Amino acid sequence: MSRVGFVGLGTMGAPMAGHLVRHGFDVVVWNRTPEKADPVREQGAHLAEDLAEMGRECDVVMLCVNRTEDVAACIAAMTPHAKPGTLFVDHSTISPAGAREIHADLTSLGFSFLDAPITGGSMGAQKGTLTIFCGGRHEDYDRALPFLRAYAKRPEFVGEAGAGQMMKMANQIAVGGALMALCESLAFAEAAGLDLAQTRELLAGGAAGSWAFDNYGPKIIAKDWSPGFSVKNQRKDFGYCFEAAETVGAVLPGTEVVDQLLAELDAEGHGEWTTAALFEVLRRKSAG
Amino acid sequence: MSRVGFVGLGTMGAPMAGHLVRHGFDVVVWNRTPEKADPVREQGAHLAEDLAEMGRECDVVMLCVNRTEDVAACIAAMTPHAKPGTLFVDHSTISPAGAREIHADLTSLGFSFLDAPITGGSMGAQKGTLTIFCGGRHEDYDRALPFLRAYAKRPEFVGEAGAGQMMKMANQIAVGGALMALCESLAFAEAAGLDLAQTRELLAGGAAGSWAFDNYGPKIIAKDWSPGFSVKNQRKDFGYCFEAAETVGAVLPGTEVVDQLLAELDAEGHGEWTTAALFEVLRRKSAG
Repeated sequence: MSRVGFVGLGTMGAPMAGHLVRHGFDVVVWNRTPEKADPVREQGAHLAEDLAEMGRECDVVMLCVNRTEDVAACIAAMTPHAKPGTLFVDHSTISPAGAREIHADLTSLGFSFLDAPITGGSMGAQKGTLTIFCGGRHEDYDRALPFLRAYAKRPEFVGEAGAGQMMKMANQIAVGGALMALCESLAFAEAAGLDLAQTRELLAGGAAGSWAFDNYGPKIIAKDWSPGFSVKNQRKDFGYCFEAAETVGAVLPGTEVVDQLLAELDAEGHGEWTTAALFEVLRRKSAG
Repeated sequence: MSRVGFVGLGTMGAPMAGHLVRHGFDVVVWNRTPEKADPVREQGAHLAEDLAEMGRECDVVMLCVNRTEDVAACIAAMTPHAKPGTLFVDHSTISPAGAREIHADLTSLGFSFLDAPITGGSMGAQKGTLTIFCGGRHEDYDRALPFLRAYAKRPEFVGEAGAGQMMKMANQIAVGGALMALCESLAFAEAAGLDLAQTRELLAGGAAGSWAFDNYGPKIIAKDWSPGFSVKNQRKDFGYCFEAAETVGAVLPGTEVVDQLLAELDAEGHGEWTTAALFEVLRRKSAG
């Protein structure tokens, strides 16, 4: 059986690698902070000494790191040692243009690449119920599928190289807008003297209803700003959204408003708060 | 048994009045265009000759008209003829400040008033599954309840006079934001070359999911701009949202963006299109 590598054992990556082990794959892991590999090593994964070893040892390597440059750097450290035909699958949310560049570079070197950003949150990673938006060649998607099924309820092929990241951008635009709808509505309701819990519950059941109303609404009422999905990560993704929108000529007037408001939290050092704290920004702008 | 009146037999009012008849109430109706009363007359309602007769004949009168001034004018035409204690229940979406004024005026004249705007759309009116946000005195709400139950799955007391309209404003703010999230995301997806049907379906199942994704998403993909809820009516409601926000000191930066974009459709004579046509506005701003 082919060995599968997993680079990046953060909140998402660690449970994803764990699912690969539990599904019986021969798993090699690597993380910048090696201690984070302890739990998945105890489950049976092998910790690579460096990315060179990871490149040598694996036929398929998943990555779940942070920014475009992190993905590029990790891949550059593996390719000089990797076997021809090695498939790299990137689960990070990065720039679509960056993903296309990495795809072109790897293809020219005789390797394969899928951009495969994930949604479903830390809970989805733990439960193995993630959705994965896969861009690249369909044959590479087919090759990755047995591994992806270990942690995804819904791996989905969405188009050529970069399309996975474009789909993730479309998702983040809609997520940001739904957050704005929720927070602006509840901040207004509070200023108007309405009962917030009653407002959330009544509106959630009708044409205003959304995943955000169901999941972020209760956090807002409890004034619980623990992440969840952090302001910093949402803004990182928005940066890629704006870059991608410029590339394809789309306009994002709503996303711009959300980003400006979240920037206020970021500037105050609350980048680690949940994005639902957008409510706080709107609330204190109220005179009421 | 007390006679119940219904003023305003439009898309919402006509089926609501019909439900009152079907529930065995003795119903008197009035509409500016009398022909619109034909179907509900055939079901057994009595058509009042004028609002004076409506005032004389009924102990409880529902209204479902359009703007604040329409509600005020209809009530002013009834009160000189109405019995002391008559309860007026307004299902129109109007200004919260206007509703509070009408409440104060009617109370000083010895009448009762509930602001009771509805949500659930024309389908909800037809099926009798509306949600009603009721503001006023709780004893008036209790008095209205047997009638409201004829067409509402969920009549709900939300606070003192004007609170019903405030809740409706909170609802419209969230509805507008959810629409924006959907349209901005799909317009980006189209510019990015993604398959729109796949995008809608994938995003609807995750953290971006909403009633708008489920109900307006398919209309956008079909480029079907028939209402539904029209641009003109959404903008009418937004006007009351901005007025109410100023009253309570809330800020509505997201709603302002949605209103500005819908204003473009309105200016082009597309005020009767569904609000989902916001997608078109964003799409043509794209260079792609």
